[in-house]
Amino acid sequence: MNAELISVGTELLLGNIVNTNANYLSKKCAELGFSLYYQITVGDNEDRLNKVLAESLERSDVIILTGGLGPTEDDMTKEAVAHALHRELIMDEESKARIQSYFDFRKSAAGGSSDITNNNWKQALKIDGSIVVENDNGTAPGYIVEAAYQQEDPNKINKRIILLPGPPSEMKPMFDDHIIPYLRNLQENVLVSKMVKICGIGESKAETMILDMIDGQQNPTIAPYAKCAEVHFRVTALAKSEESAKKLLHPVIEELKKRFGLNIYTMDEEKTLEEVVVALLREKNLTLSSAESCTGGLLAGRIVNVSGASSVFKEGFITYSNEAKQKYLGVSGETLKQFGAVSEQTAYEMAQGTAAATGADITVAVTGIAGPDGGTEEKPVGLVYISCYYKGKVVVKECRMKGNREKIREQSVTKVLDLLRRCLLEA
Amino acid sequence: MNAELISVGTELLLGNIVNTNANYLSKKCAELGFSLYYQITVGDNEDRLNKVLAESLERSDVIILTGGLGPTEDDMTKEAVAHALHRELIMDEESKARIQSYFDFRKSAAGGSSDITNNNWKQALKIDGSIVVENDNGTAPGYIVEAAYQQEDPNKINKRIILLPGPPSEMKPMFDDHIIPYLRNLQENVLVSKMVKICGIGESKAETMILDMIDGQQNPTIAPYAKCAEVHFRVTALAKSEESAKKLLHPVIEELKKRFGLNIYTMDEEKTLEEVVVALLREKNLTLSSAESCTGGLLAGRIVNVSGASSVFKEGFITYSNEAKQKYLGVSGETLKQFGAVSEQTAYEMAQGTAAATGADITVAVTGIAGPDGGTEEKPVGLVYISCYYKGKVVVKECRMKGNREKIREQSVTKVLDLLRRCLLEA
Repeated sequence: MNAELISVGTELLLGNIVNTNANYLSKKCAELGFSLYYQITVGDNEDRLNKVLAESLERSDVIILTGGLGPTEDDMTKEAVAHALHRELIMDEESKARIQSYFDFRKSAAGGSSDITNNNWKQALKIDGSIVVENDNGTAPGYIVEAAYQQEDPNKINKRIILLPGPPSEMKPMFDDHIIPYLRNLQENVLVSKMVKICGIGESKAETMILDMIDGQQNPTIAPYAKCAEVHFRVTALAKSEESAKKLLHPVIEELKKRFGLNIYTMDEEKTLEEVVVALLREKNLTLSSAESCTGGLLAGRIVNVSGASSVFKEGFITYSNEAKQKYLGVSGETLKQFGAVSEQTAYEMAQGTAAATGADITVAVTGIAGPDGGTEEKPVGLVYISCYYKGKVVVKECRMKGNREKIREQSVTKVLDLLRRCLLEA
Repeated sequence: MNAELISVGTELLLGNIVNTNANYLSKKCAELGFSLYYQITVGDNEDRLNKVLAESLERSDVIILTGGLGPTEDDMTKEAVAHALHRELIMDEESKARIQSYFDFRKSAAGGSSDITNNNWKQALKIDGSIVVENDNGTAPGYIVEAAYQQEDPNKINKRIILLPGPPSEMKPMFDDHIIPYLRNLQENVLVSKMVKICGIGESKAETMILDMIDGQQNPTIAPYAKCAEVHFRVTALAKSEESAKKLLHPVIEELKKRFGLNIYTMDEEKTLEEVVVALLREKNLTLSSAESCTGGLLAGRIVNVSGASSVFKEGFITYSNEAKQKYLGVSGETLKQFGAVSEQTAYEMAQGTAAATGADITVAVTGIAGPDGGTEEKPVGLVYISCYYKGKVVVKECRMKGNREKIREQSVTKVLDLLRRCLLEA
């Protein structure tokens, strides 16, 4: 079955709020096995909403609308759906009673300041024949409308229209608690997916490595996503049961493992690279320290963002100046003079010196030119040296990156985290 | 003129990423004075993209597409636009040369591991007659296509189609630098706006302070934007010329200045709080050092992200453990024992100790509980102490914040930057 989202609200078109509802519902639809082909955002405008709805009814089995269920004149989602299905809006006595009691409660709490205005009763109107879905976190109920759209037999239900309130705090619990069970019942097949997260290989190279697998893929499918200095592949299988979907996934996942090996850092959708690194450190009971020049604290910042990082990460240095590199990390003045602050040798001494200063089991360091100034022909913007000290040995890597200052720094952090991970796994 | 957004990417339909591009572009279109009636999201599917595009061409003057410009077979935005306008895709020699040099650069760095795969050349194809827009942060260029759509006179340009890369880090600078000037030229009236950026006052309080100005506003308009621990007001005036628009803006801006005073840290749209702070430090010729516990490097990371920060920021400490606070900053064991690591006293000694260790003119420190663990009834998650040492004096501030770990850390950084700013201005 295919589904479609319609977000209603002029505030979305003006860019006043980010449409996180669309993201949330899309993810849920994918998990439920619905093919979502379109997300539409339209303003609080009757004519345009009617047009959009007519199109959606032509092409989609399930249409989920968010927003426009409030009490004001601008709110017209129910009106538009009723219009499209040639149905009436009728008073729902239960909704009416709920609104009455909601305002009674507020009135008693606020001392009479919350009178019901006429437009509040608008929220008690329902589309004839619809299922009213209670809103546990607000006054506007949701609705499920089943329709035999353009069918001769009125019992041949072919369209389901779901109306949800706009505020995410009302929409999400309503969807999870009441709509998911309803939608699950409509589905014959289950969709199961795995995310294979890769570091250390560029996007187009990674895709070329599995072109034969992507070409002519049917079930499972493989979809690539490029992240900053990472590539993710989502592998998705459709089957009658979760078990058979997993069986379909298995050989594809195994093949990806074979091809990408150590470059895969996780197959857990929710895990980040820094979480994987912190977990490895905890598992091995190791402490980590860092010394950062061009990334200036971003690396430590990402590590510390992992809850529980405090058990492995105790301290770090931001040594932006040559003096600080000498004072805290013991980088030799000779090295700085002969090779410069951005050099293999300095990166080497920074990692080594951090270990000496902190006594940490493993240390990382980064020095480079993030730009926009400071580049030369020999050492251009984007040249970054990263290093890792572990078990008495220092590994240094030279990286050359493109992008603005922020992007170069972000990529550098990812590359250091990946170097750290590899050192932990290989040593 | 009306505009329409089409976001292309199956990852959006699967809910893997939030469509922040749509939000960004909607805001910009509103600022430019374009009426945006639709945002459409469609997957990497030729047939559906063609259909959507045909509809958009019927109803909108300017169509902005994001995504689908990459090197893979899934990327088909250029193909779809060419198809809709009955044009050819031709090789753009300049783009080809740029891609070649990008890979030469990478190859020389990586020792031959970054070969150009065939699909990379796809990015050098342009729609016949289009304007190629350089991408300063990636390999896929953007395009502006002017078309006389369904016009007898081929010179009667009535549609503008803008193609932009999907990654926000590439899309946003391209739009700001190259597309905004182009779009501005299409508009008859000028829209001039000023952004008043405020720190140290909550959103609802700030709005209440200017409720009388917002009520019944016509031209200029005042629109609030809540940021992490900041509030921005965009004041926008519409007029026939830039000069008259500026005249309309003037009294409103003056009134805002009067009401918010020192809480306004800039009225420059492009300036960030950290840029303002670094500029102040440079102006006063002062050096800065930092000591971070719960923010773990994020603060230094934000400061160092300002190009040219190296002249004022030389070094910083990440002292996540009590031991590190003692070793590097000289926080006394007695203080840690009696008051705890998250206390006014510890924050005081951290700032003072950082000054002693580094000799910097001004220092800042932060210690707190970012959660999700570690909170107690007395010291809940979100309790953060920030401090600033300047001219022999230490100022400590207690903050209580709401939100998840990441949000608490981000707010903390903003609050430290603001404290630093105030100390610099007030001392």
